[in-house]
Amino acid sequence: MNRVAVIHGPNLNLLGRREPEVYGTKSLENINKEIEKRANNLKIEVDIFQSNHEGEIIDFIHDNYKALSGIIINPGGLTHYSIALRDALAAVRLPVVEVHISNIHKREDFRHRSVIASVAVGQITGLGTEGYLYALEAIVNIIKKGSY
Amino acid sequence: MNRVAVIHGPNLNLLGRREPEVYGTKSLENINKEIEKRANNLKIEVDIFQSNHEGEIIDFIHDNYKALSGIIINPGGLTHYSIALRDALAAVRLPVVEVHISNIHKREDFRHRSVIASVAVGQITGLGTEGYLYALEAIVNIIKKGSY
Amino acid sequence: MNRVAVIHGPNLNLLGRREPEVYGTKSLENINKEIEKRANNLKIEVDIFQSNHEGEIIDFIHDNYKALSGIIINPGGLTHYSIALRDALAAVRLPVVEVHISNIHKREDFRHRSVIASVAVGQITGLGTEGYLYALEAIVNIIKKGSY
Amino acid sequence: MNRVAVIHGPNLNLLGRREPEVYGTKSLENINKEIEKRANNLKIEVDIFQSNHEGEIIDFIHDNYKALSGIIINPGGLTHYSIALRDALAAVRLPVVEVHISNIHKREDFRHRSVIASVAVGQITGLGTEGYLYALEAIVNIIKKGSY
Amino acid sequence: MNRVAVIHGPNLNLLGRREPEVYGTKSLENINKEIEKRANNLKIEVDIFQSNHEGEIIDFIHDNYKALSGIIINPGGLTHYSIALRDALAAVRLPVVEVHISNIHKREDFRHRSVIASVAVGQITGLGTEGYLYALEAIVNIIKKGSY
Amino acid sequence: MNRVAVIHGPNLNLLGRREPEVYGTKSLENINKEIEKRANNLKIEVDIFQSNHEGEIIDFIHDNYKALSGIIINPGGLTHYSIALRDALAAVRLPVVEVHISNIHKREDFRHRSVIASVAVGQITGLGTEGYLYALEAIVNIIKKGSY
Amino acid sequence: MNRVAVIHGPNLNLLGRREPEVYGTKSLENINKEIEKRANNLKIEVDIFQSNHEGEIIDFIHDNYKALSGIIINPGGLTHYSIALRDALAAVRLPVVEVHISNIHKREDFRHRSVIASVAVGQITGLGTEGYLYALEAIVNIIKKGSY
Amino acid sequence: MNRVAVIHGPNLNLLGRREPEVYGTKSLENINKEIEKRANNLKIEVDIFQSNHEGEIIDFIHDNYKALSGIIINPGGLTHYSIALRDALAAVRLPVVEVHISNIHKREDFRHRSVIASVAVGQITGLGTEGYLYALEAIVNIIKKGSY
Amino acid sequence: MNRVAVIHGPNLNLLGRREPEVYGTKSLENINKEIEKRANNLKIEVDIFQSNHEGEIIDFIHDNYKALSGIIINPGGLTHYSIALRDALAAVRLPVVEVHISNIHKREDFRHRSVIASVAVGQITGLGTEGYLYALEAIVNIIKKGSY
Amino acid sequence: MNRVAVIHGPNLNLLGRREPEVYGTKSLENINKEIEKRANNLKIEVDIFQSNHEGEIIDFIHDNYKALSGIIINPGGLTHYSIALRDALAAVRLPVVEVHISNIHKREDFRHRSVIASVAVGQITGLGTEGYLYALEAIVNIIKKGSY
Amino acid sequence: MNRVAVIHGPNLNLLGRREPEVYGTKSLENINKEIEKRANNLKIEVDIFQSNHEGEIIDFIHDNYKALSGIIINPGGLTHYSIALRDALAAVRLPVVEVHISNIHKREDFRHRSVIASVAVGQITGLGTEGYLYALEAIVNIIKKGSY
Amino acid sequence: MNRVAVIHGPNLNLLGRREPEVYGTKSLENINKEIEKRANNLKIEVDIFQSNHEGEIIDFIHDNYKALSGIIINPGGLTHYSIALRDALAAVRLPVVEVHISNIHKREDFRHRSVIASVAVGQITGLGTEGYLYALEAIVNIIKKGSY
Repeated sequence: MNRVAVIHGPNLNLLGRREPEVYGTKSLENINKEIEKRANNLKIEVDIFQSNHEGEIIDFIHDNYKALSGIIINPGGLTHYSIALRDALAAVRLPVVEVHISNIHKREDFRHRSVIASVAVGQITGLGTEGYLYALEAIVNIIKKGSY
Repeated sequence: MNRVAVIHGPNLNLLGRREPEVYGTKSLENINKEIEKRANNLKIEVDIFQSNHEGEIIDFIHDNYKALSGIIINPGGLTHYSIALRDALAAVRLPVVEVHISNIHKREDFRHRSVIASVAVGQITGLGTEGYLYALEAIVNIIKKGSY
Repeated sequence: MNRVAVIHGPNLNLLGRREPEVYGTKSLENINKEIEKRANNLKIEVDIFQSNHEGEIIDFIHDNYKALSGIIINPGGLTHYSIALRDALAAVRLPVVEVHISNIHKREDFRHRSVIASVAVGQITGLGTEGYLYALEAIVNIIKKGSY
Repeated sequence: MNRVAVIHGPNLNLLGRREPEVYGTKSLENINKEIEKRANNLKIEVDIFQSNHEGEIIDFIHDNYKALSGIIINPGGLTHYSIALRDALAAVRLPVVEVHISNIHKREDFRHRSVIASVAVGQITGLGTEGYLYALEAIVNIIKKGSY
Repeated sequence: MNRVAVIHGPNLNLLGRREPEVYGTKSLENINKEIEKRANNLKIEVDIFQSNHEGEIIDFIHDNYKALSGIIINPGGLTHYSIALRDALAAVRLPVVEVHISNIHKREDFRHRSVIASVAVGQITGLGTEGYLYALEAIVNIIKKGSY
Repeated sequence: MNRVAVIHGPNLNLLGRREPEVYGTKSLENINKEIEKRANNLKIEVDIFQSNHEGEIIDFIHDNYKALSGIIINPGGLTHYSIALRDALAAVRLPVVEVHISNIHKREDFRHRSVIASVAVGQITGLGTEGYLYALEAIVNIIKKGSY
Repeated sequence: MNRVAVIHGPNLNLLGRREPEVYGTKSLENINKEIEKRANNLKIEVDIFQSNHEGEIIDFIHDNYKALSGIIINPGGLTHYSIALRDALAAVRLPVVEVHISNIHKREDFRHRSVIASVAVGQITGLGTEGYLYALEAIVNIIKKGSY
Repeated sequence: MNRVAVIHGPNLNLLGRREPEVYGTKSLENINKEIEKRANNLKIEVDIFQSNHEGEIIDFIHDNYKALSGIIINPGGLTHYSIALRDALAAVRLPVVEVHISNIHKREDFRHRSVIASVAVGQITGLGTEGYLYALEAIVNIIKKGSY
Repeated sequence: MNRVAVIHGPNLNLLGRREPEVYGTKSLENINKEIEKRANNLKIEVDIFQSNHEGEIIDFIHDNYKALSGIIINPGGLTHYSIALRDALAAVRLPVVEVHISNIHKREDFRHRSVIASVAVGQITGLGTEGYLYALEAIVNIIKKGSY
Repeated sequence: MNRVAVIHGPNLNLLGRREPEVYGTKSLENINKEIEKRANNLKIEVDIFQSNHEGEIIDFIHDNYKALSGIIINPGGLTHYSIALRDALAAVRLPVVEVHISNIHKREDFRHRSVIASVAVGQITGLGTEGYLYALEAIVNIIKKGSY
Repeated sequence: MNRVAVIHGPNLNLLGRREPEVYGTKSLENINKEIEKRANNLKIEVDIFQSNHEGEIIDFIHDNYKALSGIIINPGGLTHYSIALRDALAAVRLPVVEVHISNIHKREDFRHRSVIASVAVGQITGLGTEGYLYALEAIVNIIKKGSY
Repeated sequence: MNRVAVIHGPNLNLLGRREPEVYGTKSLENINKEIEKRANNLKIEVDIFQSNHEGEIIDFIHDNYKALSGIIINPGGLTHYSIALRDALAAVRLPVVEVHISNIHKREDFRHRSVIASVAVGQITGLGTEGYLYALEAIVNIIKKGSY
């Protein structure tokens, strides 16, 4: 059975409590349950991880990539500057789908640029926490095709 | 029953024939069939439209918006400069999901900027023609929530 | 009797229905009536044209310029990128007055630059639909002076 | 009876003598007479002021704003850098119409940007000294509507 | 016999009438006759097309590319922004030679950048209407070599 | 007893009347009383000056610097362009503390840059009219240390 | 009793040992004592935290914000790029005062921009370690006012 | 006898007292004496003026230009932003020589650009207070030639 | 008989040996023979010159321009920075045609800008070594017309 | 005996496994052995450290700098944004040599800028893992000279 | 007796023949005679050199600097890019005065920046060939003062 | 035996005499002796060349490349603009190591960009004249590996 990591970056642990008009009112726990349910339907295993530490996210990718078939990542604020995270994702050569809950193109100028996007297969922004579920479908589809 | 427009911009009629290493080998006809099938499953009607003319796409939006609950659009090359198209989408105040088959963030610098993105609810890029299907799910979800 | 074209660019057909907090509540039909009434007072004929198609606007200019003494144009979204429209206006060597209903300098950065402005005699922005009426007075004045 | 200030910025006292191919041959005295005549027709009082001093213009605005219903201003060279003048106009919360005799968009690059424009209701450029008269009509119209 | 399209973009129908100090005094009809004559000498067929509509030019390329061995295009004002046209030319994978009658590098800054140039084999600028004839020779040469 | 100038730039005389949601509701007179009271506590004399004229502020600095031990300045709109004021402050070689009532980093882009900041010892922004009081404490501290 | 966090970012643990000509000779321990003393005078509790880890600072904010009435932060080098830290501060919706010991506007260009400043209430720069004490006074004042 | 204005901008009254390592130790009075002596030798009259007020300098130019054959100006800090001063100099159509005592190209980036330079005949920078004397020679030479 | 210089800039002596996938496999000797043959057909003399020295190319232009009716130049790497070469071409006031073998618009960003192009009549890029032959035809045509 | 730290930043633990066409096939363990061997030859001790955490690298520098005579650092992706790391290196005032295995100037634009380089004595890029060995020689040489 | 080099850069040998409306009608020979005459009056020797070769100018500076007390240079087109020439001038540590016959600030944007200016003591532009004579006076003055 | 060129660009002949605080006190002759000695140890021949002429360096590369296995180059000031030199290095397809004695990243902004770096295998900066010796080791290593 294919295994996919779902990585939540800095501040996503506050979901539901943080700026609900931007990020909605669901807690990360509830979102993770929906992710697990959808993964179950799609017949894949998910390995969900959240950290506010760039280094821990990189360590997680290094430690787990051999067991993974793909990565879904919402890099939070790291999206816009963490070249170290970008390098980690590029290094492990797995298909990556980048997810943002809010539409980063509607927000401050510095949020329009993602240093992650060009090492990902694709990106889903602004579609709320459902974006993770579409990303799961996409990653299953990419794994099935076998090339990306 | 909710009705959603799916708009394909310039050159998308060439799909399957155009740069298959970038855009894949499925023809637009086949993609449209998949869209209709998924729409059927989601219990919405779709109104699919393709044009190479900026003006025709704007006319289409004006002529149909009253009957629509949402718009899915792949603006093709217009993505990067057509403020007239942007204004049309903003004017009709419907939820819009922007779709790109390829990952525009991996391509030429001028493709990294979308003048459409900030009037859309969200954007899906790089996930192939399946992106349209995730957009359908998203738009149904947005319509259900009733606010965006 | 002098004849002046009044050209409304993309999306202006939606006036009154589109973002009334930005563009006001008058329909284009009503605005056109006010334009015709003022033209009547000023003893000029007006030839009013609206299109969402850049190409149709250029064709209109080409087809009519010999019969015209001046052009009033609200290029809508084309203002900011249509060098083809700019070239058409420059080519026919008529006095042009550019009108914007809203104050483009208060809006998004990309609206601050008009590629049309430097081939026009002048520009009126932000004064609502009355801007067309001041433009009519201005064009009559320019025609009377005979140089611009 | 409504009272409107007409403020002429630096160097406008030289009108008629200064670069007539750019600014025309009418003297400021003659322009002011036309302004007063039109004001008379429009049944408003005008309070005309010219200064080459940024500080005096700001003082004038502070000293008179309580008695005014609107401001017409041609800020001259201050247009492009005087944030202090911009702040004075914003502070008094009156409707402002910005006038330029020449078309600033046809001239040097540094003249394309007005730091005043985004605190004004609207802007008239390139329509010669008649621009002041259209501005008078506009300000009367804005006052009548009561919101801007 | 090889067939080559010669596409004239917006405003080129005005040639001979439009800014003759920039574009010369020959009409498009006369230029087309010279093109046909030279094509005849070079033993190729030419399919000449002019439109002021971006969409019509894209349609023309789509409708005819299977019968063509190469494309000569003067995109007019579209040169500087029409990524949709660029995509059409890239999609059909024919050799393209871009022609400009005037030297775009001597004119306004915004004319220095062509979004078409990097999908063309080469570009000829500033050599007047003879540029089309050199382009014909070049395209014949490119076709003969069989790679580009 | 040490003497410190407190200089209020353009439009600060309107405090309490001007955009109270940005600048608060205290009048300049009341702020000055608080400044004098705090100065009294800190055992320094203050010389308070307000002007809307760049030139008068420069004259004030020239005329008084020999009697001063430090300068507190809120340059208002001059902050962003008055290199002449900057040069005056640099010329007299006194310690300068720059104060802004509102947080200039939260406002328009052009307010993010201060041409004064790099000739000041330090800057206090966004802390309301109390900022002047902290600046008084700071300048006393700087004078006491004797180097800056 | 109100509780305020004082957060010292990377390298501030070296204070007194690091570039004393820029940062002075007081050790962080001594500065913290002064902060505690002033807090005592102001009748607030302080929770002082230093870390060289972006992630730890974010964790600290998440773990403590419910018990806090405000945050004083010197983000050190993180000031200029850590959007993750900015997001953490924005997420918890507490009043924030940003402190820099040195005048960042006098130093390298890359230090002139703070990604934190626009989510803070205000900023104090260049006033040495006393800046923390003014920040304490300011935060008490902000808490008292109850809105920011 | 030809009459030439020598205008000293803001802060030049401090010469000899202000940053002597940049501007030297001669007072403005002594410099003016040297200017008068050289003018005497060159058989021209000089009208020397200093002000810290942009508006006064513009007024001086307006009030005196009819009696002048040329202007020598050291605009001080106004060099870099005062478009109003530039417009005054351009308006009176006299030959202008711009002088800077220090080498502005060796100093801060914002001093590298002069908004005055392109309306002057020429510019002398970095040659100390003798620069005024060379400017006198130059202006005499320009007046003699009669065209510039 | 008209005489035309054909100038090959730095590194063009390596043609045939240098990056053949970019510049083709013909040696400079062979290209020069083709140029001479075509010149012969066009009944002009050619004076062919190659140098890797900017200074030698400028000397060549100075020494020969009186005997020349036009210049064809491929400035090689000098294209992008040699303002001294540009000045030499502008100084001699002959018609210049700029040739590039490869399409500089498809290559590195720094190759997109030619400092030569705006002093040339026109430019041919990307059409291989045949570009020189079209340039010969063009220069003959320009000489015949007598104005450029 | 002098002691030198060799610090490997994020993702360098993957060496040999990560993009071998960019970074080569040697593992970090093997590289470290070569470093130790060369250090042995040069008669210095090395203290080798790798971390994916910016904070841990800063802590390592703080904890060890008193025992060190120099630092060799390959900051990995942190090179391009970690001002906190830069500040740590500047704070400890040891000679630093920056090493990059690949040639960062040949790669993406964002890799061309190092925020570390200007606090280092020097930089070695693109010379493979041998770069560390040259850096060892260099640091020994710098230590011997005693000034940098 | 002090010896000063006067260096004329590329294309200055064409003076009198080259664009006389920009550079005047005097030949370089005549200018050099005026320079020698003025040098004679000032009791200095001049060593005049012209070359179109950057390398020869650098060689000249290297070969002669020990015998020189100062350098006057008009670098021609090299002004705007020749960092090698700049380095040569900086290396020999002589006082340098930069001269331009035309006003480079009135010409193309790329002429506004001199890479030489910040290693010169000062710059004279736009004052015609007399600029060399003022430069001679200036250099004599600088030598007399003995510091620069 | 492998032969490697060592090329010193403009002004490096002045080493030891030029700005010793930047470039050290060793003469080029001494440096060359150290290079020869190290080459001897490494069992390669070196061909050392210095010129202040861009063209001579390009000629040298063209004339010698067939006999060479690699090139070490310190391009001096040419580093930052000489695309002609870059093209010469790229054309001969030898491994190139770029050396700078000083740390160009610590100096003026215009020195941060090397147009040579992206055609070199690697770059060594700031390590003094020893940088040449490390470059020799590196080039031997690159030659041994046989690919770069």
